[in-house]
Amino acid sequence: PAQRVASFDQDVWSIFTPLAAETKAINLGQGFMNFGPPAVVQEAAKEAIDRVEANQYSHPRGRPRLRNALAASYSPEFNRQLDPDTEILVTAGANEAMFATFAGYLDEGSEVIVMEPFFDQYISNITMNGGKPVFVPLRAPDHAATQNISSGEWRLDINELRSKVTPRTKMIVLNTPHNPIGKVFNENELREIGKVAEEHDLIILTDEVYDRLYYPPLEKFPRIGALDKFWDRTLTVGSGGKSFAATGWRVGWLIGPEHLVKYAFAAQTRVVFCVNSPCQEAIAAGLEASLTEPIFQDQTNSYIEKRSRLSKVFDELNLPYTSPQGAYYILVNTSKIRYPADYTFPDILDQRGDDFKICYWLAKEIGVCAIPPSEFYTKEHWPLAKHFARFAFCKTDDVLDQAVDRLKGLK
Amino acid sequence: PAQRVASFDQDVWSIFTPLAAETKAINLGQGFMNFGPPAVVQEAAKEAIDRVEANQYSHPRGRPRLRNALAASYSPEFNRQLDPDTEILVTAGANEAMFATFAGYLDEGSEVIVMEPFFDQYISNITMNGGKPVFVPLRAPDHAATQNISSGEWRLDINELRSKVTPRTKMIVLNTPHNPIGKVFNENELREIGKVAEEHDLIILTDEVYDRLYYPPLEKFPRIGALDKFWDRTLTVGSGGKSFAATGWRVGWLIGPEHLVKYAFAAQTRVVFCVNSPCQEAIAAGLEASLTEPIFQDQTNSYIEKRSRLSKVFDELNLPYTSPQGAYYILVNTSKIRYPADYTFPDILDQRGDDFKICYWLAKEIGVCAIPPSEFYTKEHWPLAKHFARFAFCKTDDVLDQAVDRLKGLK
Ligand SMILES: CSCCC(=O)C(=O)O
Ligand SMILES: CSCCC(=O)C(=O)O
Repeated sequence: PAQRVASFDQDVWSIFTPLAAETKAINLGQGFMNFGPPAVVQEAAKEAIDRVEANQYSHPRGRPRLRNALAASYSPEFNRQLDPDTEILVTAGANEAMFATFAGYLDEGSEVIVMEPFFDQYISNITMNGGKPVFVPLRAPDHAATQNISSGEWRLDINELRSKVTPRTKMIVLNTPHNPIGKVFNENELREIGKVAEEHDLIILTDEVYDRLYYPPLEKFPRIGALDKFWDRTLTVGSGGKSFAATGWRVGWLIGPEHLVKYAFAAQTRVVFCVNSPCQEAIAAGLEASLTEPIFQDQTNSYIEKRSRLSKVFDELNLPYTSPQGAYYILVNTSKIRYPADYTFPDILDQRGDDFKICYWLAKEIGVCAIPPSEFYTKEHWPLAKHFARFAFCKTDDVLDQAVDRLKGLK
Repeated sequence: PAQRVASFDQDVWSIFTPLAAETKAINLGQGFMNFGPPAVVQEAAKEAIDRVEANQYSHPRGRPRLRNALAASYSPEFNRQLDPDTEILVTAGANEAMFATFAGYLDEGSEVIVMEPFFDQYISNITMNGGKPVFVPLRAPDHAATQNISSGEWRLDINELRSKVTPRTKMIVLNTPHNPIGKVFNENELREIGKVAEEHDLIILTDEVYDRLYYPPLEKFPRIGALDKFWDRTLTVGSGGKSFAATGWRVGWLIGPEHLVKYAFAAQTRVVFCVNSPCQEAIAAGLEASLTEPIFQDQTNSYIEKRSRLSKVFDELNLPYTSPQGAYYILVNTSKIRYPADYTFPDILDQRGDDFKICYWLAKEIGVCAIPPSEFYTKEHWPLAKHFARFAFCKTDDVLDQAVDRLKGLK
């Protein structure tokens, strides 16, 4: 095998998603919905399947209808008229948007600054393209060990970020709303990060796949690409699957200035050539509908309700957690949870963080599956994740209620 | 930009597909259908859209139903019981299957032997992953300049292939049925290629996306992965889009021994994570139906009819061509076609093979769009393609008839 690929471990998703199925645990692990896309989106997909042309190759930049809908939906967000022909690229999911960007801009030895914890795929996507991830931590305040905090209290030390820049640094990866923390970076934080990028002429690649899922008191989702002059150096990633409850459709996008979209496009057209056509039509229909119907507002309201539906059990159990400002994960401090000292764990958990054990035990004995966040840390920092588990609340109310009932078994 | 990506030229597809639209030419260029998938496949797609779970992430190896259907469909082809859990990988189109294989097996400087002409994406997919393509020609016999030949008459010189092997060679890429030639390699040819691979312990990556589209007198499609002991070193690529007239669905697959699928899988799960879920269900339904209904036979019969519907005009025009044993392209010798010496071509055709000019003129003045095959040659060999144009016949009869009518204008 190739050196860059030979060392990849089995990822957390392919351990815990099957585990949830085998143990019949309520699956609050991998972040997918157990409900479908809005009716308007679903109907548009079926209607597209009936149109001959919508089943054939799309334009490699994405279908014109979807690029136009993205321009209409996102132009107000960036305070500028986006050009659907040059500033928007449709990708095979947000993941492939990031892969293509790394492919388009990294050379052997290029450094990319990544905040830790990080969504795991970033790292392989960087190293597969010859890059080297350089880590800077997001830190929770000390009182997070004993009381609930808002995800906004996780902080980046901007001077620490600045100190990581070298002559080889090409890019800073940002993720807001952040997975797994739920942090939405505020404008001040974004400006500080943007300034570092300006000082050293870096590209900012911002993963904003949860951009439609942020909660009051936030009234507006701050985007670094919309601030000051950062547009010129920023590529923003979005997700049809996260925005419209269709994680299996693999329709994502990249928005940015022509000179940056250009080489991500050059790469992505070689990697996948184009993206699933009928589902592009459907996502376009969803975005079009969102211009006149409160699709995203309704969705936000339902997620606010889901967040408290789940979090209340952690209050009851006295397990401190990070309440997310965005996305659909709750990071829970599990240090008070006890499992039998002689409990037997399967081999597959060897060589993993201790949090894999707790999550395994929770799935197997309590019947609720969560994700061990050491997957989001470098091995050296696995101990930081030891006492955490990430619970997803992108589930129907009945499933959340069942999970809550089972979690009460921890009392 | 990254060095590996900075030099990519605009590809032929993004020149000629828009050109066909602008000039209102009948588009026999890029190989997509102007008809849809079989009803059973289309209905299954819509039915999947209605099922919540079929809209969410798939197993990264592919949905179990599709992997089972592929095993059922392909096991007889390989004379072995394929294991859907380890020997089959569903990919984001056949293109990404090849990309992931290169990512999984190439290191900086690895050499990959590719036959020329080649499907253009192979080259970028190899170089993006650090590999170096090494070319060996397929040659038409001399009499192809004056008379029609069968694609089987294009030959590989096996000693020339052997002479290209170096200590850095990792892989041989095979393409059968071949695009753009239509050649289906026979068992003898495959055995010779396989022997070279054995002698030097090379992986064989065989692109068989047109495997359901081969024509009499061929009764069986020979697969190198089914011959002798070549299974152990062969990865076979297939395509849901080509097999079921849905090129925009981006559902492909890779079939091979566990030890080879393994690292292609490790790469592809990082590149795209998983593949469009509802369309996987639909392709599964199509494969299931093909076990009891003559879907592929009917399709073959209709393509045989289409091939002669189009080729007869080249007979009439006295333009010699290669009659394809498989796939849906006719490679036509255009040397007798004359366009005005003072004809003005757009700048976009500068720095391209002369065949780009003929194809441009055909689209604009005759109203039929074809693909200039120099796209499938290294620049050094562009002159070989100078007098050729590739016409696709994966179109409804009325469209083929219109194209024929317009082509008669060449008389
Ligand atoms: C590659 S699994 C993706 C799901 C997800 O985004 C998450 O659960 O973090
Ligand atoms: C990347 S375009 C693919 C279409 C095709 O296979 C062809 O026309 O050769």
